[in-house]
Amino acid sequence: MRTGGVLNIIGKLLLLLSLFLLTPIPFSLYFQDGMVKMFLLSSVLGAMMGGCLLGLFAPEKELGYRDGFAVVVLSWLALALLGSLPYLLSGAMPSFIDAFFESMSGFTTTGSTILSQVEILPKSVLFWRATTHWLGGMGIIVLSLAILPLLGVGGMQLYQAEMPGPTKDRLAPRIQDTARILWVVYVAFTLIQILFMMLGGVNFFDAICHAFATLATGGFSTHTASAGYWQSSYIEYLLIFFMLLAGVNFSLHYRAFAQRSLKPYLQNEEFRFYMIIIGLATAAIFVANMAHAVYTASGDNLRDTLFQVVAMITTTGFGTADFDQWPSVTKVILVSLMFVGGCAGSTGGGIKVVRFLLFFKYARLQLRTLVHPRAVGAIKLGRQKVPKEVMIAILGFFAIYIAVFLAASLLVTGMGVDLVTGTTAVIATLNNIGPGLAGVGPAGNFGDLPQAAKVVLSFCMLAGRLELYTVAVLLTPGFWKMARRPVWRWELGKTSEERIQK
Amino acid sequence: MRTGGVLNIIGKLLLLLSLFLLTPIPFSLYFQDGMVKMFLLSSVLGAMMGGCLLGLFAPEKELGYRDGFAVVVLSWLALALLGSLPYLLSGAMPSFIDAFFESMSGFTTTGSTILSQVEILPKSVLFWRATTHWLGGMGIIVLSLAILPLLGVGGMQLYQAEMPGPTKDRLAPRIQDTARILWVVYVAFTLIQILFMMLGGVNFFDAICHAFATLATGGFSTHTASAGYWQSSYIEYLLIFFMLLAGVNFSLHYRAFAQRSLKPYLQNEEFRFYMIIIGLATAAIFVANMAHAVYTASGDNLRDTLFQVVAMITTTGFGTADFDQWPSVTKVILVSLMFVGGCAGSTGGGIKVVRFLLFFKYARLQLRTLVHPRAVGAIKLGRQKVPKEVMIAILGFFAIYIAVFLAASLLVTGMGVDLVTGTTAVIATLNNIGPGLAGVGPAGNFGDLPQAAKVVLSFCMLAGRLELYTVAVLLTPGFWKMARRPVWRWELGKTSEERIQK
Repeated sequence: MRTGGVLNIIGKLLLLLSLFLLTPIPFSLYFQDGMVKMFLLSSVLGAMMGGCLLGLFAPEKELGYRDGFAVVVLSWLALALLGSLPYLLSGAMPSFIDAFFESMSGFTTTGSTILSQVEILPKSVLFWRATTHWLGGMGIIVLSLAILPLLGVGGMQLYQAEMPGPTKDRLAPRIQDTARILWVVYVAFTLIQILFMMLGGVNFFDAICHAFATLATGGFSTHTASAGYWQSSYIEYLLIFFMLLAGVNFSLHYRAFAQRSLKPYLQNEEFRFYMIIIGLATAAIFVANMAHAVYTASGDNLRDTLFQVVAMITTTGFGTADFDQWPSVTKVILVSLMFVGGCAGSTGGGIKVVRFLLFFKYARLQLRTLVHPRAVGAIKLGRQKVPKEVMIAILGFFAIYIAVFLAASLLVTGMGVDLVTGTTAVIATLNNIGPGLAGVGPAGNFGDLPQAAKVVLSFCMLAGRLELYTVAVLLTPGFWKMARRPVWRWELGKTSEERIQK
Repeated sequence: MRTGGVLNIIGKLLLLLSLFLLTPIPFSLYFQDGMVKMFLLSSVLGAMMGGCLLGLFAPEKELGYRDGFAVVVLSWLALALLGSLPYLLSGAMPSFIDAFFESMSGFTTTGSTILSQVEILPKSVLFWRATTHWLGGMGIIVLSLAILPLLGVGGMQLYQAEMPGPTKDRLAPRIQDTARILWVVYVAFTLIQILFMMLGGVNFFDAICHAFATLATGGFSTHTASAGYWQSSYIEYLLIFFMLLAGVNFSLHYRAFAQRSLKPYLQNEEFRFYMIIIGLATAAIFVANMAHAVYTASGDNLRDTLFQVVAMITTTGFGTADFDQWPSVTKVILVSLMFVGGCAGSTGGGIKVVRFLLFFKYARLQLRTLVHPRAVGAIKLGRQKVPKEVMIAILGFFAIYIAVFLAASLLVTGMGVDLVTGTTAVIATLNNIGPGLAGVGPAGNFGDLPQAAKVVLSFCMLAGRLELYTVAVLLTPGFWKMARRPVWRWELGKTSEERIQK
C-alpha cells in the first residue's frame, strides 16, 4: 500500500475541514455565545494535524486499488475525529466517546444523537453539528457515484456509466469533474431550501441548519421537537419535498437539470420503484391510523404519515410524530422502510432501493426458472442488462449486511440493552437513519446507552455509510498481505488528462 | 397438469391417514375417554373422501414436473384437513379454524398451539396430536431427501447424489426405496427414545407422545408445562440428545448405521457447522445467564441453556424455561437460531444450516474477489464443488423468505396484533418452531390471536415446511399457463425398474 500517498490525502482533507471549522464563527459573533476562541482553536489544531501529515508524506501521482479503500475509510474516521473537537472543547459533551459518536453521526448523515435537549448547546455548535451533516452528504454523493463504482463495491459498478461529466455521450469518469457537477446540484438545492424555509417564516439560522440536515438526509435538528417545532404544514411539506429529492440519485437531478426535463426521473426504474414504495407505504399507514382513530383530522394523518414514511425511507430520521404510539402494523412498515433506504447515488443510507429491486427481480427469475426449467432469463434494470458480477455482489451485500447486523445486535444487547432498543439502535445506525424504537425511539436518545455500545454503534454508522464492503475489505487479513501491485489505477491529481483505466 | 393422477395420489394418502386415525382407539379404550366412536367416524369419513378420489380419478403411470409441486402442496393441505376432524368432532376445538391451525401445526411439525391447557383434552386426542407430528416428520424426510432434490427446489438438488438406496456406490434414486430406508432409521430412533424415556420413569403414553414430537422436531407436549413437567435432568438430557439427532440429515444417520461408524457425521461439513453453532450459542447464553445471575446452580444454567438452544435450532420448540425472562442478548441469540433451523434432510425447519453455511462462504468469496479482483474462486461443500445454479437457488431462497416474512408480518400486525407478538408469531410458524416471544412466548399460546391471523400463520407453516419455493411456484400465474409437456419425468409406480430421468 502507498501509505504515504494515502495519508497525504487525509492531510489535505483535514486542512479543508479546518477551514470549515471557521464557518460557525460568524454565528458565534452574532449570537454572542462565546465560542469564537474555541472554534479558532479547533481550526488551528485541525490545520496542525493536516499540516503534519502533508509535511511528513509526499503526494503520489497514482494510487492503487487497495489505497482507494484505505482513503475512504480513513477519511471518514479522520473527519469524525477532528469534527468532535468543538463538542469536546465547548464542554457540551465532556466524554470523548459521546463527542465522537455525535460527530460520526454527523459525517455519516445518520442523525442519532446522545443529547436529550439540543437547545442548551451554543448556537454556533449547533451550526457545526448541521455542517457535519452537510459535508458528510457531499462526501457520500462523490463516494457513491464516483469512487465506489470504480472500486466495484456492492454492485455500485452499475453506476460506472452513469457518472455525469462534461461530455454528454461519453461521460468523463473523472472523480473531480463528477464531484464538481454533483456539488453544484447539491449546493443549489440547499440554497433553494433555505430560501423557501425563510419564506415560511423560519429564521436564517434554523433554515440553514435544517437545509443542511435535510439534503444530507441527516436529521439533526436545532430543536428537541425536531421538525415538529414549527407546527406548520407548509414547513413539513417543504421538508417532505426536499427529503424526497435528497433520497434520489443525484446524477438524475443533474441530467434532469441539464435536459430541462422530468424524463430522466420517469425513465429511471429505481426512481419509479422508490416512488411506488413511498406511495404504498403511505396509503397503508394512512388506512391503519384511520382504522385505529389515531387522528381526528385526515389531513393531519396524511401529512404526518407521509412525513414519517419519507423521513424513514430516505433515512433522514426527522420526526414530527411519536410513531411508537401508532398501531403495530405501521411500525412493521416503518422499520422495513428503514432497511430499504434511499436510491443509490443519493445521500440516503440503508440497503438502497436498487438492491431490493434487483433482489426481488432475482427471486422472480428463480421462480420462473422452476416453472420453465429450460428457460434462460436475464435481469434488466431499465434497458441495461445487469451483469452477473453485479448481481453476485448485490446478493453478497445482503449476506454481509446480515452478518454485521447480527454481530452488532449481539454486542449491544450483550451489554445489557433491552431487545427492542438494542436491535433498533443497530438498525438505526447501520442504515444511517437516526432514531430507532423504544429507548432510542423518536422520544428517546442514545445518551443513556453504555459507552461501549456507543463505540459499536459508531462503527455501525461508518460501516453502513461506506456500504459495508469498504470497511469489511479492510478487516480481511488478505487485504494487508496483498503484494503491491496496482491491478488498475485511478488518479486524484488535478492535471491528469488520462482516463482512469480498468 | 395431470389433475386426475394428482388427485388419485391424494386419495391414496387420505386412505392411509384413515388407517392411522384408528390408532388412538386403543388409548381411548384404555383411558376410557369415550372417543372410540369419534375416531371410528373420523376414519370412515376420511376413507370415504379418499375412496371418492380413487373412484373418480384413475392413477397415471407417469407424473410431470409440475404435478410434483401440486402433489406436495395438496398432500399437506389434505392431511391437515382430515387431521383436524378429531379436534372438531371431539368438541375439543369447536372452531374449524382453530382445529385446522392445530392440525396444520402438527403435520408441518411446527408445534404452535391454540390451547392454553393441554391436559383437558382426552388422552386419545392428545395421542392423535402427537401422531400428526410423527407422520409429518416422515413426510418431511422423504420430501427433502427424495422429492425436492428432483424438483430442484431451493438448492436441494445438492442432495440428489446423497439419496441413500440399496446399492452402495450408485445410490438408486427411487423415491420408494429412499423412503423405506430412511423410515427404518426414523422408526428405530422412535422406539429407542420411547424405551429410554420409560426407563426414566415416564409412562408409556407420555413416552410415545414425546418421542413422536421429538423426532419430528414438532414440540407438542401432553403437558402444559411441556418438557419441564418431569423436572428431571435425565429426561431433559435425553430429549436434548434426540432433538439433536432429529436436527441432523437422516441420510447421515443411515450411512453411519450402514458403516457402523461415526465418520459420516464428522466428514459432513453441515453437521460440523451445526455442532459449532450449538456450542457457541450455548457458551454465550450460559455466560450471559451467569453474568445476570439468572441461575444459582451452574448445572441448571447449562442444562436449561443447552435445552433451549437445541430446542430452537432444531425448531422443536419444547420449553423447559421461560426465556422471555432471560437477559436480552440471549433472546437475540435464540431468535437467530430460530432462523438457522436444522440440517437439510432432517425433520427440522428454518432456513437450514447448509444454506447459511453457503451464504457466508459466498460473502467471504465476495470479499476475496474485491481484494484480488482477478482471482477466481469456487464454493465448496465438503469435497463437492457447489454448482452455480445451486448457489443461485439458495440466494433466491433468502429473497423469497424475506418477502414472505414481510408480507405475513404486515398482515398479522395489520390485524391489531402487537409488534413483538406478531413478528415472532410469523417467525415461529414460518420456521416451524412453535412458540415465539411475548403473547406467543413460552408462557403464552396462539389461541387469542384473531381468526384471520391464524389462517395467515397456517399458511406460513405450510410455506415454511415446503421450503417456500414449492408453494410460491404454485402461486405463480405462469405455472398454471404452462403447456402439458413433461420436461422430465418421475415415477411413483411400484413396479418401475426404469430410473428417474432428468
